[in-house]
Amino acid sequence: MKNMKNIITEGIADFFCEYETPRQVLVRNRRIGITCRIIQLGVLAYIIGWVFIYEKGYQSVDTAIGSVFTKMKGIGITNQNGEEQVWDVADYVFPEQGDSSFVVMTNFIMTKGQTKGKCPELLDKQERCESDADCDEGKFKRTGNGHMTGKCFNETGACEVFSWCPIEDDRNVPDPALLLSAENYTLFVKNAITFPQFKVVRSNLVEGVDKNYLRTCLHDPVKAPLCPIFKLGDIVRFSGFDFAEVAREGGAIGILMDWECNLDLDVRHCKPKYEFYGLYGSADKTKSKSEQPSVGYNFRYAKFYMENGTEKRTLMKVFGIRIEIIVHGLARKFDIIPTLTAIGSGVGIFGVATVVCDLVLLHLLPKRDFYKNMKFKYTMVDNKSSFQQAVISEHKVAAESNWSRLRAPR
Amino acid sequence: MKNMKNIITEGIADFFCEYETPRQVLVRNRRIGITCRIIQLGVLAYIIGWVFIYEKGYQSVDTAIGSVFTKMKGIGITNQNGEEQVWDVADYVFPEQGDSSFVVMTNFIMTKGQTKGKCPELLDKQERCESDADCDEGKFKRTGNGHMTGKCFNETGACEVFSWCPIEDDRNVPDPALLLSAENYTLFVKNAITFPQFKVVRSNLVEGVDKNYLRTCLHDPVKAPLCPIFKLGDIVRFSGFDFAEVAREGGAIGILMDWECNLDLDVRHCKPKYEFYGLYGSADKTKSKSEQPSVGYNFRYAKFYMENGTEKRTLMKVFGIRIEIIVHGLARKFDIIPTLTAIGSGVGIFGVATVVCDLVLLHLLPKRDFYKNMKFKYTMVDNKSSFQQAVISEHKVAAESNWSRLRAPR
Amino acid sequence: MKNMKNIITEGIADFFCEYETPRQVLVRNRRIGITCRIIQLGVLAYIIGWVFIYEKGYQSVDTAIGSVFTKMKGIGITNQNGEEQVWDVADYVFPEQGDSSFVVMTNFIMTKGQTKGKCPELLDKQERCESDADCDEGKFKRTGNGHMTGKCFNETGACEVFSWCPIEDDRNVPDPALLLSAENYTLFVKNAITFPQFKVVRSNLVEGVDKNYLRTCLHDPVKAPLCPIFKLGDIVRFSGFDFAEVAREGGAIGILMDWECNLDLDVRHCKPKYEFYGLYGSADKTKSKSEQPSVGYNFRYAKFYMENGTEKRTLMKVFGIRIEIIVHGLARKFDIIPTLTAIGSGVGIFGVATVVCDLVLLHLLPKRDFYKNMKFKYTMVDNKSSFQQAVISEHKVAAESNWSRLRAPR
Repeated sequence: MKNMKNIITEGIADFFCEYETPRQVLVRNRRIGITCRIIQLGVLAYIIGWVFIYEKGYQSVDTAIGSVFTKMKGIGITNQNGEEQVWDVADYVFPEQGDSSFVVMTNFIMTKGQTKGKCPELLDKQERCESDADCDEGKFKRTGNGHMTGKCFNETGACEVFSWCPIEDDRNVPDPALLLSAENYTLFVKNAITFPQFKVVRSNLVEGVDKNYLRTCLHDPVKAPLCPIFKLGDIVRFSGFDFAEVAREGGAIGILMDWECNLDLDVRHCKPKYEFYGLYGSADKTKSKSEQPSVGYNFRYAKFYMENGTEKRTLMKVFGIRIEIIVHGLARKFDIIPTLTAIGSGVGIFGVATVVCDLVLLHLLPKRDFYKNMKFKYTMVDNKSSFQQAVISEHKVAAESNWSRLRAPR
Repeated sequence: MKNMKNIITEGIADFFCEYETPRQVLVRNRRIGITCRIIQLGVLAYIIGWVFIYEKGYQSVDTAIGSVFTKMKGIGITNQNGEEQVWDVADYVFPEQGDSSFVVMTNFIMTKGQTKGKCPELLDKQERCESDADCDEGKFKRTGNGHMTGKCFNETGACEVFSWCPIEDDRNVPDPALLLSAENYTLFVKNAITFPQFKVVRSNLVEGVDKNYLRTCLHDPVKAPLCPIFKLGDIVRFSGFDFAEVAREGGAIGILMDWECNLDLDVRHCKPKYEFYGLYGSADKTKSKSEQPSVGYNFRYAKFYMENGTEKRTLMKVFGIRIEIIVHGLARKFDIIPTLTAIGSGVGIFGVATVVCDLVLLHLLPKRDFYKNMKFKYTMVDNKSSFQQAVISEHKVAAESNWSRLRAPR
Repeated sequence: MKNMKNIITEGIADFFCEYETPRQVLVRNRRIGITCRIIQLGVLAYIIGWVFIYEKGYQSVDTAIGSVFTKMKGIGITNQNGEEQVWDVADYVFPEQGDSSFVVMTNFIMTKGQTKGKCPELLDKQERCESDADCDEGKFKRTGNGHMTGKCFNETGACEVFSWCPIEDDRNVPDPALLLSAENYTLFVKNAITFPQFKVVRSNLVEGVDKNYLRTCLHDPVKAPLCPIFKLGDIVRFSGFDFAEVAREGGAIGILMDWECNLDLDVRHCKPKYEFYGLYGSADKTKSKSEQPSVGYNFRYAKFYMENGTEKRTLMKVFGIRIEIIVHGLARKFDIIPTLTAIGSGVGIFGVATVVCDLVLLHLLPKRDFYKNMKFKYTMVDNKSSFQQAVISEHKVAAESNWSRLRAPR
């Protein structure tokens, strides 16, 4: 007699002595054989070729944490009404601290000596006042420059507003742009990235980009793809814009620093690629100008000063090229989890191949009934119920199942 | 006699003429049939319905690279101590260049004419000096406004500090906010996104949002969900804040531009949705004010000027609404890789259905021993070892396995 | 006779009464049993242990939308040429509005009273002019400070340039840094994050970080890991830099706020971790200084003022510590889709175990031919074609397949 412990021990022993493997039919038929092998090889080629080699499904992925520092260099000269002016970095870059997103001024409308007070509104072609009643006191128009005081200047048809006076006149944008010389400014980009999961730190000043190289190099997609110094004119050209046009109306350009690193290779091969995208700016030539919504890029800022105890300001409407440096870092490294997941999916897809082949085998081939017979064993127990019967049916199954097939409607 | 080449050729021919397919038992039993078909149909419905239709598992995903440009419009009027002042964009937006993150000033404490020098510290209720000994020379308090010089003003109990003088007095915040008229300012948002993988570029000025529409439209979640012009008061309301409160203490609001694009459809259907999140600002009414950590949003900035050769500044403590425009772009497009991965997983999950059904079949049904007998073929080779035996056992297996079952403890 | 409807009904009834399950061979052999069970248990342990417990494959993932607000506090004192100066937040933080990326000035070169005009270029050791011919009119050197007018100052060898005059002399950087007292400035970071998919909002002022705690706490990785107030000197030290060095030349530091939240637990456990990364700054001591590309961090800005009707400016070359606060939020929560995908992959990987075991069983074991015979049923229909034959072959298959094996070359 066996006690409980023995039963368990034997159960475990049994478990470790047994192995289940599916029984299979080996069909020897040229047509079905070739069809299925091609399907299976196709799936295998797909799993190995695409998932593993092309998409690198055996690697895990980490995105980068990046920091960008930019520095513009160059001097611009303007000559308005005979007055020569010089503009350096502290004058034409906004904001000044070298952010990854900044604006380079290329054109401007300057309104000097504004003070807070009352003056006539800028004249709009459409709406002119004829009497004070047209200038509702305290009201404010969405496109207006100040609060209306309720007074109408009859000679000109302008309402009086409470605002910074004189009102900026931005109806005519200087053409060509005042700072066309901005084309020759240079931009230096420093970028440090960290892949936290893989503990890898890289800078865009990679091996070979040292102090001497930086002194003279200028980025060129073919000749100097790793030089982080760009001519502003080149950036605009690379992004598909026309410099004169963008300089006049303003625009935005994205510089994508694309790090695609395979860390299974040496880290030296982890280098950035620079790509240039025109974000918005020049008008779509296929549309008329009046249809275009919001062309160009501009903003206003003011330099405040005190004169004889009064606060005054110089208002600048700045048209410029906005540059956004976008870091897109992706590192890949061998990892067991995605590898096994890819293999698991692959085996699953192999199952699809079997399903497709079985469909062909069991429904399309002339000898399909024979193969059905080989593949399936039928149990007829619903109407016969003795255990003995079942054992017998095992030996009768081929003939019986044939009969059941004829009876079954399909 | 065959040479090596012949053998290999025949091997390849053999490989292509053979096809293996698992042998299966076709159990005809109403109960188990219905159970298993329901499980299988459930899995099929899950794979097709959820993975494919709901989660769109047959598509690959790309995130957007986006650029945002913002422009505020509107004029604010303040009236402090009878002095009327006007504030325009160049006065109340920080920073000025139309970033995706910016602050609109709604309240302020202005300290005019500060110069570098020595003056009494701002009086704090808790700590008052009684003699010079209480004002350690050179020391600096975390909440102080300058370096203590070591002198105590006995009349008031304030230490003298070396700082910008006079010291800003920010103990009382103007209530109501000075620039409540900010409610009517409008914000225009321009957003360009690129899906680099799919080479698709979109702007939030989609089809239908043209120059004429922009002139008059105002964003409304229901009536004008695509208009990119927002009233500041609306933004605050949409995000769940009270304008008067946020204007006084400051706060931060996130505007999420959510692009969820199915690029299998026409690109015209790729439109942004605008969502508004209150990030921080108004106090949690369930807590007492003294418990609340760091309510509101404020910062200081200074306008510098020269007066009679001395550098002076106007210090502003600005309370404002900080707006952060967050672009979240996700495009999906049919791709063969995720499709096959999803199918592979699906087939795998189908395997789970088979495992569950087999558990029911082999362990729960009354005729489980019969089914076990049908499904499994037992080999008894451990004790019998001739090859002939094995061939014989094939014909005896039904009876024998029955016997092995009786012997096997389980 | 049956009509169409009956046939379909019967077909459906048949479909629901049938269940297919693969026939399997149960091999009783100690060696193969143990091998296969170990492989299967290994796969099971991998799926449960790694995919489910370690990688939490049963959860779906959401990344956070975050907003950061920063505030510096502290007063700096400089003493240059006997002139004592005080610097507060409005003087040393750029930009002023509390962005997630900002610069704290620690050193500077100030050039007072610049006006637009003509003056000699800064003398460079390498290039000196000997006559006017060396100073090409209208030309501009990449490292120059203005447009050359074509005149050479023979005494000094400097070309005359049209620029802001006098030219800034940045050949000597103040050493030690002028604002070493910046070490004691404090930085307060407020961070609100939203997991839009899970509708969870959190702030870094978590439970326990209230008004009283904030008044006195100072971040310490061990003692106060949740205090969001940092001493600037600590930040620099945590990131691996030397304060004096970084203060002199400038540098950049990333503060990573890492939110890894398991939302299957209480939301109170969703807390940020603060990590500090030196992005760039101090020189690599293993290289000579002349080899180092672009060490440090600096930028220029100008304070403009009017003096007697002329626009003047004070140019600052600012060396500072740039701090970038990077929010990395990842929340995980149970989701049925990834769970089922993981199970599906797991079942697929189980298939791999079967494939490996079969390889062992059919090709490595001594009794492999016996097992092949058990596993496979062979069809010989290519040369025999009557249906009757097939039925017969079913009964002959064991003997025949043995013969086919002997004939088949492998």
